[in-house]
Amino acid sequence: MIQTMPFSPDHPRPAMHRFLLAGFLLLFAAEQGVAQHAGIFINKEEAAEIRGALGKYALLDNAVALAEETMEAAFSKPIEVPQPGEAGGYEHERHKQNYREMRYAGLLYSITGEEKYAAFARDMLEEYAVLYPTLGPHPLARNQKPGKIFHQTLNEEVWLVHVSIAYDCIYEWLSEEERARFEARIFRPMAEWFSVRNKEEFNRIHNHGTWAVAAVGMIAYVMGDQSLVEKALHGTELDGAGGFLAQLDLLFSPDGYYMEGPYYIRYALMPFFYFAEAVHRMQPEVGIYDYRDRILGKAHYSAVQTAFPNGVFPPINDASRTMDVAAPEVILANALTYGQYGADESLLGVARIQNRAILNGAGLKIAHDYAALDAPPDMNWPSIEFTDGHDGEQGGLGILRMGTGQDESMLLMKYGVHGGGHGHFDKLHFIFFDQGREAIKDYGFGRWINVEPKYGGRYLPENESWAMQTIAHNTVAVDGSTQNLGDEDAAEATSGQRHFFEAEGAQAKAMSARADTHYEGVAMQRTMLLVRDERLSYPVVIDLFRLASDASRQYDYPIHYSGQPIAYNLDFQTRAGMLHPLGEDSGYQHIWETARAATDETIRFTWLDGHRYYSIVSAGAPGTEAFLGRTGANDPNFNLRSEPVLIVRRQASDHLFASVIEPHGYFNEARERSAQARPRIKEVRVVGHDDRGSVVEIEGEGGLFWRVMANNGPPSKTTEHTVSFDGKTYAWTGNFKIEFIDTSAGAPDE
Amino acid sequence: MIQTMPFSPDHPRPAMHRFLLAGFLLLFAAEQGVAQHAGIFINKEEAAEIRGALGKYALLDNAVALAEETMEAAFSKPIEVPQPGEAGGYEHERHKQNYREMRYAGLLYSITGEEKYAAFARDMLEEYAVLYPTLGPHPLARNQKPGKIFHQTLNEEVWLVHVSIAYDCIYEWLSEEERARFEARIFRPMAEWFSVRNKEEFNRIHNHGTWAVAAVGMIAYVMGDQSLVEKALHGTELDGAGGFLAQLDLLFSPDGYYMEGPYYIRYALMPFFYFAEAVHRMQPEVGIYDYRDRILGKAHYSAVQTAFPNGVFPPINDASRTMDVAAPEVILANALTYGQYGADESLLGVARIQNRAILNGAGLKIAHDYAALDAPPDMNWPSIEFTDGHDGEQGGLGILRMGTGQDESMLLMKYGVHGGGHGHFDKLHFIFFDQGREAIKDYGFGRWINVEPKYGGRYLPENESWAMQTIAHNTVAVDGSTQNLGDEDAAEATSGQRHFFEAEGAQAKAMSARADTHYEGVAMQRTMLLVRDERLSYPVVIDLFRLASDASRQYDYPIHYSGQPIAYNLDFQTRAGMLHPLGEDSGYQHIWETARAATDETIRFTWLDGHRYYSIVSAGAPGTEAFLGRTGANDPNFNLRSEPVLIVRRQASDHLFASVIEPHGYFNEARERSAQARPRIKEVRVVGHDDRGSVVEIEGEGGLFWRVMANNGPPSKTTEHTVSFDGKTYAWTGNFKIEFIDTSAGAPDE
Repeated sequence: MIQTMPFSPDHPRPAMHRFLLAGFLLLFAAEQGVAQHAGIFINKEEAAEIRGALGKYALLDNAVALAEETMEAAFSKPIEVPQPGEAGGYEHERHKQNYREMRYAGLLYSITGEEKYAAFARDMLEEYAVLYPTLGPHPLARNQKPGKIFHQTLNEEVWLVHVSIAYDCIYEWLSEEERARFEARIFRPMAEWFSVRNKEEFNRIHNHGTWAVAAVGMIAYVMGDQSLVEKALHGTELDGAGGFLAQLDLLFSPDGYYMEGPYYIRYALMPFFYFAEAVHRMQPEVGIYDYRDRILGKAHYSAVQTAFPNGVFPPINDASRTMDVAAPEVILANALTYGQYGADESLLGVARIQNRAILNGAGLKIAHDYAALDAPPDMNWPSIEFTDGHDGEQGGLGILRMGTGQDESMLLMKYGVHGGGHGHFDKLHFIFFDQGREAIKDYGFGRWINVEPKYGGRYLPENESWAMQTIAHNTVAVDGSTQNLGDEDAAEATSGQRHFFEAEGAQAKAMSARADTHYEGVAMQRTMLLVRDERLSYPVVIDLFRLASDASRQYDYPIHYSGQPIAYNLDFQTRAGMLHPLGEDSGYQHIWETARAATDETIRFTWLDGHRYYSIVSAGAPGTEAFLGRTGANDPNFNLRSEPVLIVRRQASDHLFASVIEPHGYFNEARERSAQARPRIKEVRVVGHDDRGSVVEIEGEGGLFWRVMANNGPPSKTTEHTVSFDGKTYAWTGNFKIEFIDTSAGAPDE
Repeated sequence: MIQTMPFSPDHPRPAMHRFLLAGFLLLFAAEQGVAQHAGIFINKEEAAEIRGALGKYALLDNAVALAEETMEAAFSKPIEVPQPGEAGGYEHERHKQNYREMRYAGLLYSITGEEKYAAFARDMLEEYAVLYPTLGPHPLARNQKPGKIFHQTLNEEVWLVHVSIAYDCIYEWLSEEERARFEARIFRPMAEWFSVRNKEEFNRIHNHGTWAVAAVGMIAYVMGDQSLVEKALHGTELDGAGGFLAQLDLLFSPDGYYMEGPYYIRYALMPFFYFAEAVHRMQPEVGIYDYRDRILGKAHYSAVQTAFPNGVFPPINDASRTMDVAAPEVILANALTYGQYGADESLLGVARIQNRAILNGAGLKIAHDYAALDAPPDMNWPSIEFTDGHDGEQGGLGILRMGTGQDESMLLMKYGVHGGGHGHFDKLHFIFFDQGREAIKDYGFGRWINVEPKYGGRYLPENESWAMQTIAHNTVAVDGSTQNLGDEDAAEATSGQRHFFEAEGAQAKAMSARADTHYEGVAMQRTMLLVRDERLSYPVVIDLFRLASDASRQYDYPIHYSGQPIAYNLDFQTRAGMLHPLGEDSGYQHIWETARAATDETIRFTWLDGHRYYSIVSAGAPGTEAFLGRTGANDPNFNLRSEPVLIVRRQASDHLFASVIEPHGYFNEARERSAQARPRIKEVRVVGHDDRGSVVEIEGEGGLFWRVMANNGPPSKTTEHTVSFDGKTYAWTGNFKIEFIDTSAGAPDE
């Protein structure tokens, strides 16, 4: 382990003349702005403006304060550049902290002109210049491409992205010898390691490739190596098969939706926007922010517009359940999007959750505009559908929203591409967000991220055996198996399909999608509605999940809820003496079966979650079984969280699961208040369903009666539909219709 | 159901001359203060002062705003006085809301002089005057004493306490006929129902008795019936065997500790303080606030001083896990205590969490003083021991605290009386609060309070079969059974015993207690220390649980943690194919055994809870078994929460469980940070223990070495102790000593 004391007035550097000169420059800088090289992230004018704005704008001040606190902590200890260590271990974390400190040191030097910051970054680079040439490929890479400082190149590329900014900020302050030493001993060999030795990853259309080209491109700009920049932009062969522009072409749908999902776009936003900002500043002729019809702006919007009302990203695919728009990557992208694509007040709503800007001109701008508002805005997004696939033809992601701010209800359905190695087998899966929480939820990934004793913080075996499986999601599992039989290549070769998405109505919004190629011989269509009826306290979900098959199948309809069962009309048999897993594979082996019931009737099941009750009321069908389960079976290392699930099971060929999910009432344990613990919706009846349409009737207290009609044929807003079931005819125009009826004075029809 | 429209200017009352007179009085009131009767809670001068202070003090304004919002909602709907209904049902909640509204109406009439408030209370009382005489005993009382409006007298007494204040506030505004009607048709028969028909409960030394005497005493003051007041103060026989003063004598220990625990004193504070305040105002010669050496003030302090740093009351005995000092009862008691017993800044710390005062002179005072502070204070309490039993000789409750504000660590041990029908068989049980949460916790009660589908919101069978049992707590269960074999009378007949409590040290605080009469033939002593060592990030717990028996027993040492197992040195065998309950009775039947291990070595078990890791490191002993379990077995109605437990099991006669519980590291999933997921403490060794003392050695990383010596004999701060184990002698003075040693340069002894 190498340690040196950071530069400070108490520990003058050997080269005293340099120190005195620097002091002179410092005085000069305070007047004129600090000398600075290329300016891949911040230039002298911006630095001077930020200096003049200190103390005025909270978001900017918070950013400066975080940088200064980080550096105060760094100055309080010796610089430490340890030998490489294992993933998630002390040395690994030290090297990560080092790049953060160097970036902050560079930025603070630019802004304040205080030489101690520049000296800190220089001194740390000197340590790396000693260490790096001694290193070979990291021995603990396991499945990953090895870095040298880190176990995988990915971390090392992240290191270089940040350090490029630091190096850029202090470039002119360094001596020529220092620059030559750092470039020869660190930056050039590192760029070569990424772009030559790991050429495949560098050219790969994947977020790892984005980090690689960003790292190489940014350091190339600072070093003034335009030929290396070109490789970063166009791939090592300069043929456009790889490189930054190809990634912008292929990693996003035309709407900007990122095929791996919000958690990954969150991560990818950083290299995309850091490198884009560098390209914009160094080669404005590329027009990077306009590229592919302003795809970078769309990418940022597609990320933040998927967020729950509390700012947390929906944890679809392999994803943390707590990642949110306050992540540093989103802070970066939000400020740059605001600066480049126009002052959208909704982005200030994002900034409210972030409570911090970035340290350049765009950060100053958003901080200034935010401070000028009378009241901080909510982050209110419209209902929106994103197409998926680089061509926009591979299904999509639908989000229906009602209400505003923290009172918003949000219903999300996933019907796009598989999403690569991080994809889950979960087409037609939904999440329902209500009361500021995921009321019906996604498990997220099977991973305790960066928790070293949990397999080094990496993905756990249970990620594949549970989290990726169909039954771990809120979508029907057929014959106890997983979509595409759990085969990633098969899942990648197909996708869900959009059917219709209509979110204009104030009282009812609907989305519908299909997945016909995920279970052999089974066509699946799900139509979900978010419905507001003044007779109910909150918007409710109507769910019509239709399956069609030639043969009789086992259809399992799961609801992954949170909280405590409260009331139900099921005669549950619990297992007093023992518990067994619900199955042997496809994720079922991880579910303890805690109760089982049989019924032919409408199912009503109420649970309590936080301050609100939730009921699912589901149309009856002969021979229905219902299970309560809890994750944790066959989990020898306690890697899974213990969470409950309700599963409704039916044997059928053609079948429609028709359900209403109703939030209701209020509970406050501390104040000992409870109200309306039972749902207002009492009955859901399937009138009929076929390839043309589905008709469902819903009844509730006080004469509430809804007739729901949904189009199952080709989507159209204008087609008139007529279907007959049991001799009765139902007619409507367009993709769906709900008749809101009050039967308190008589029957619904006469 | 009876409904009338509330009085408003748009709906003039038939007696118009009265309306005009009231308008005249209103003008007068604005100048002079509103006419008012006795003033059992607020008088004219206080009302005028509050009127003058509106808009100045946040705590007071919040109280007024809550009252006004409640009344605005009340005015927006017809007055509704329904026929009685079932517990927790709509009618039950309506009658509760009615008394709240009447009290607020009375207080707002006093403060604002606006006649609409007085009219509202009057109109509602008119409805009750019609309904109440028609009612007999409530048919759904089940085990409780029936009320008439409510299923039990308790709720009806609460109703009368609140309505007495309302009646007092509008007394002079009412006509003589109205007063006569209300007293004849409601108040006198109700007081008789409580004090004659339910004489036993009225005279009972129990919080139900307190509500009864408060209700009767308060309405008696307003009606001017001094003989009824005397019964409320001294019991129906006026012999002091029952009544308010006897309750003050017997329900509290000399320290003010309430034998049922904090959750129940919280509930009882309201009748105690409402009635005391009425006595104080109407019969100052009683000197009620000075009674029994100012026991009322001590009672309030004993309640709030047990609270966790976040204001939540420890859920010992039958208790909610979320009840806190912001409960209305504590808001009342806090303001009156502040007013009566002196301006203690710590009470302003309580007020910070409450964020609201009460509507009388004491409320004005605390709101004024709070607003005068530069910064709102934390609620910082000292470490403290409360004696238990009315004589203070029946054990106690010990609380050790380190740190301040939300960063405080708190260790609580329970070693007092059983606590009546709400008592748990949990002597020597502990709770460890850290990181703003109960890290090692109490299950609380088995009850979904006021949740109608959950057995009417009442106590569930699982309260007795699980929550009360010894194994449901963090204390040793012997031979798989519960203390006193679960016999309440046997438990009531004994108590824990204090041993020593020393909280002066900054680096180590200790408490020690015994329970020798809870398992036949087994003497139990627990010594717990809260220890701060600068080499560790947070205070740690040292736990020495010593058991002595003539015969070999099974000792189960449980830790009820929260969160996810992370790392351990145990070779856990999990149950892949099935789960079984851990036992058949005494609470064990509710625990699924999820894993089992055998070891002779030191046990290390780490879990993750929130943003922090926790490890228990426990001295090894031959033939140890360790179990992981989860509640939920034999729970046919899903009444239990699913929570994990670690149990260390040993067969022995004399045995010392010696453990360290270390909080460490940091985890933030959203920011993907993890640090120090493994404990610094590595070894705990029992050097020896006997009736005179215990010696334990603890080792950790970086040369950390602690030698812990504890006195097991008669407590003394000055006695010199010398014990010898394995030929080595250990000497110390007083009840305990920790030697903090750094062995990084060599062995601990030379």
